[in-house]
Amino acid sequence: MNRAIERALRQVRGTSIVAGSGSAPGARAPRFRSHSPWNPQRALPIEFVAATARDVSDAAGAADRAFRADALADGAKRGALLRTIAEELEARRPDVLTLGVRETGLSRKRLGGEFDRMVGQARMFAAEAEDGSWVRAVIDPAAPGGPDVRRMLIPLGPAAVFGASNFPLAYGVMGGDSASALASGCPVVAKNHPAHPATGELIGRACAAAVVRVGLPEGVFQLLHSGGATDLDVGRWLVEDPRIRAVGFTGSRAGGEALAALGAARRNGHAEPDPIPVFAEMGSANPVVVTERAAAARGEAIAAELAKSILGSTGQMCTCPGLIFVPGAAARGFFDRLSARLRAPRRARAMLTPRIAAHYHDRLAALRRSGCAEASTPEATGSAAARGAPALVRVRGADVLGRAEAWDEVFGPAAVVVECDDAAPLSRLRGALVGSVYFEPEDETDPAFVALVRALAAKTGRLVCNGVPTGVRVCRAMVHGGPYPATNVPWTSAVGASAMERWCRPLCWQAAPPTLLPPELRPDNPLGIERTVNGNASRGGA
Amino acid sequence: MNRAIERALRQVRGTSIVAGSGSAPGARAPRFRSHSPWNPQRALPIEFVAATARDVSDAAGAADRAFRADALADGAKRGALLRTIAEELEARRPDVLTLGVRETGLSRKRLGGEFDRMVGQARMFAAEAEDGSWVRAVIDPAAPGGPDVRRMLIPLGPAAVFGASNFPLAYGVMGGDSASALASGCPVVAKNHPAHPATGELIGRACAAAVVRVGLPEGVFQLLHSGGATDLDVGRWLVEDPRIRAVGFTGSRAGGEALAALGAARRNGHAEPDPIPVFAEMGSANPVVVTERAAAARGEAIAAELAKSILGSTGQMCTCPGLIFVPGAAARGFFDRLSARLRAPRRARAMLTPRIAAHYHDRLAALRRSGCAEASTPEATGSAAARGAPALVRVRGADVLGRAEAWDEVFGPAAVVVECDDAAPLSRLRGALVGSVYFEPEDETDPAFVALVRALAAKTGRLVCNGVPTGVRVCRAMVHGGPYPATNVPWTSAVGASAMERWCRPLCWQAAPPTLLPPELRPDNPLGIERTVNGNASRGGA
Repeated sequence: MNRAIERALRQVRGTSIVAGSGSAPGARAPRFRSHSPWNPQRALPIEFVAATARDVSDAAGAADRAFRADALADGAKRGALLRTIAEELEARRPDVLTLGVRETGLSRKRLGGEFDRMVGQARMFAAEAEDGSWVRAVIDPAAPGGPDVRRMLIPLGPAAVFGASNFPLAYGVMGGDSASALASGCPVVAKNHPAHPATGELIGRACAAAVVRVGLPEGVFQLLHSGGATDLDVGRWLVEDPRIRAVGFTGSRAGGEALAALGAARRNGHAEPDPIPVFAEMGSANPVVVTERAAAARGEAIAAELAKSILGSTGQMCTCPGLIFVPGAAARGFFDRLSARLRAPRRARAMLTPRIAAHYHDRLAALRRSGCAEASTPEATGSAAARGAPALVRVRGADVLGRAEAWDEVFGPAAVVVECDDAAPLSRLRGALVGSVYFEPEDETDPAFVALVRALAAKTGRLVCNGVPTGVRVCRAMVHGGPYPATNVPWTSAVGASAMERWCRPLCWQAAPPTLLPPELRPDNPLGIERTVNGNASRGGA
Repeated sequence: MNRAIERALRQVRGTSIVAGSGSAPGARAPRFRSHSPWNPQRALPIEFVAATARDVSDAAGAADRAFRADALADGAKRGALLRTIAEELEARRPDVLTLGVRETGLSRKRLGGEFDRMVGQARMFAAEAEDGSWVRAVIDPAAPGGPDVRRMLIPLGPAAVFGASNFPLAYGVMGGDSASALASGCPVVAKNHPAHPATGELIGRACAAAVVRVGLPEGVFQLLHSGGATDLDVGRWLVEDPRIRAVGFTGSRAGGEALAALGAARRNGHAEPDPIPVFAEMGSANPVVVTERAAAARGEAIAAELAKSILGSTGQMCTCPGLIFVPGAAARGFFDRLSARLRAPRRARAMLTPRIAAHYHDRLAALRRSGCAEASTPEATGSAAARGAPALVRVRGADVLGRAEAWDEVFGPAAVVVECDDAAPLSRLRGALVGSVYFEPEDETDPAFVALVRALAAKTGRLVCNGVPTGVRVCRAMVHGGPYPATNVPWTSAVGASAMERWCRPLCWQAAPPTLLPPELRPDNPLGIERTVNGNASRGGA
């Protein structure tokens, strides 16, 4: 073990971060280790203790108390918390990256970019909380038509956030879900991903330090370790706790569906049905369409761009190109060009976990066995497989129309080139996070192309023109979501300011005196937020 | 049968309104009648034909074709449609009211107000569609930080709307659900409520005439009759049709839960899971809190106000007062005052259906048998029961804490006075559409009162100060929704401009050329809508 890892690990205790829990972990809690993605035999010299049912209940209770005590009611305070979290994280940047590289197999460069996104989005949400206009205050003053009515978004309560395996920082325990939940006023109980427990805990310690620094109760942010025999239990205990009011998840379809089912079947403390929203972003086989004109004019350049997008992070991104539709005549040439460029990076990388590597190869093998594969790059085996050797499969559009296995995500550095005689195969597309379309200016006025773009838009949350689907700009206009099965909540986005709205519901006050109203709705608009008054935007009083 | 009914019925054919279906209804379709709520033996002299599975499929197909053909893509056209619908409805006002009174037992005065609301909200949604800003366009132009990203709400596709029994107009086949769906660009297939088939069909004929007048395809609005043996089937066929993309429902909890389960378990045409959102507004036992000060200062006036609210429309409103919390010392006096005022109106009215009347009396009887009733008004029997005789029950807060039967809605002109020694019973409240609180100015600074208001806000979608919960102002700020079980989608409102957002999801375009962008997102902002550009509201170009 090198010195950098040693130093970073000194800040990691192997225990969950639960408010008021200073005692040693129970003897019966399962222990687990952080294994190297390169070599499952090698583990970090630290034992992690999985959270017990008691830990989960304690954390939910502390989060609930913090919420009821209005700890996060003030937007300025929420902004301060998120800015302090960003600072505390930045103070630990080298250590977080060191542990992240060691636990995930992702490159330091990639994780560096992801780190910047993690702190950048925390600050973006801080700014939204500070400005306060995000609550969508709408005011219809009393009129002959009716009483004074004022509405705004209010936070639901404690949120459970499940960190993703493939984005340990930007979608991890202080990723977009946690930051947006805190920004909207919901305390967070984060479940760390068992594949990178040290990285997650270090981030969690930074957040907990920030909570103390700004003088908030510890229940505002807590972290649970899970792994070993009770890995699935920790998640279940958390989602089923009556004090948890919403859940954020980024990961596999199976995982998302299971949590959504738990959320829907929940009972409250009186054994009555008590469903809560589960926001599951479950990945997708993202479509890329290359028009005949684009393939002819710049097939080589497009292939180069897509190869980079497929190979980045060993293909372990939910926005990776999945199904590349190329018109019949151009398809073979395009396949050859793209497969020639799909070379593994010089410095070999491992996939995130042995399980993900195995799953990658199983999915590829099934696709090749399905009978619809016309051609494919050689199948990697052994250590090349574990390292996520790139793969490309070519199929004919007509052949895959009825084959479900062709339309599901292959999580890893692989893509499927679909040779299309017409737009029919696009009709079989399932909901996707993102779609890309490569075209030439002449295409823009071609009715068939316009129809194609429309078909693609109907199946995606984001439509990229002449660019790769990977790379998500963190901005207000971003939609990181999409029709089922990409997500179970197509009316939300996991990225951008609107992500805060997920953790809320609208409440309206009718004929309320100013003293009872929250500041956002008071006639004097003390926060100076933008509100819709009688249908018009205004930062004035009303 | 009087002449007014005869004249009105001449416009009713007894058949569903399905695009392109000019043929006679199939021999195997069940027939049913419209029975009088006053006397189940008396029926209107017309036979209604329930929609067949084929009718449902034809309607969904026509709606889907209209959607794909962009029939409703233009906001000005949608506005024109809704304004023409309002006109066509107004031309039939006396006939709609005549049939409505005859089929529902509600008063002409009440239905007149509801009629005005129906056409008023259609025009409100028309104005929203015409203005176009409701799509929440957000634009982040290209910057060193990333590509040009533009988002807006897009309609999901054909919507199924289930008309409510208790609001045949404002929540009927052209109620808020249908009007908001059309305004957002979703064709509507409405299922008429079997308790008022003639009223619903007449409204449907008016809407269909409007569709023709503005030159839109018939698939834009269609109406299905259901009743008799296949009543539940029609709803199921509709929700399960793969071309239906969202569902609106107002009615009982059992009905809403059943539809939501169907929507979640759906399969598409390829037998793959294909869940769609079901927006179910399921009613609630709405809480009313009267403080000690308010009871002392103006108990009589409050009782008078609440009595009127309980009795209106024979108590058949989802916003009726349900549980009235009164401090211990004042509770008995308040109960006596309120029960003295709970006299049925001079002109006796029937409940909507014999089934609703039976259910009303079963619920009341169960409550009285539960052992927590301290006192209650005499139980009505026979014809008084069918007419929905008012009832008031008094219980002690401590007694009802553990009794589920005390916390569920009693649909009818009844309320429960809960004698409270402290705020503990409020903790057991279930989610409600609306809560009311009666207080005096001195209460506003009393921390116990502030805590109470907060507890009430946490369980409701709308909080009314010193007023009755009934009466929903149709305005932008209104929230008609609330935590489960009042609705299954607490983040939505069924009333007000935001109701349009339910039928949509966000889509974002990345680096798209102006020719491909919808007008709402084009750089020149041809519609002049309000958009958020780089975080600031603007009606200019970007």
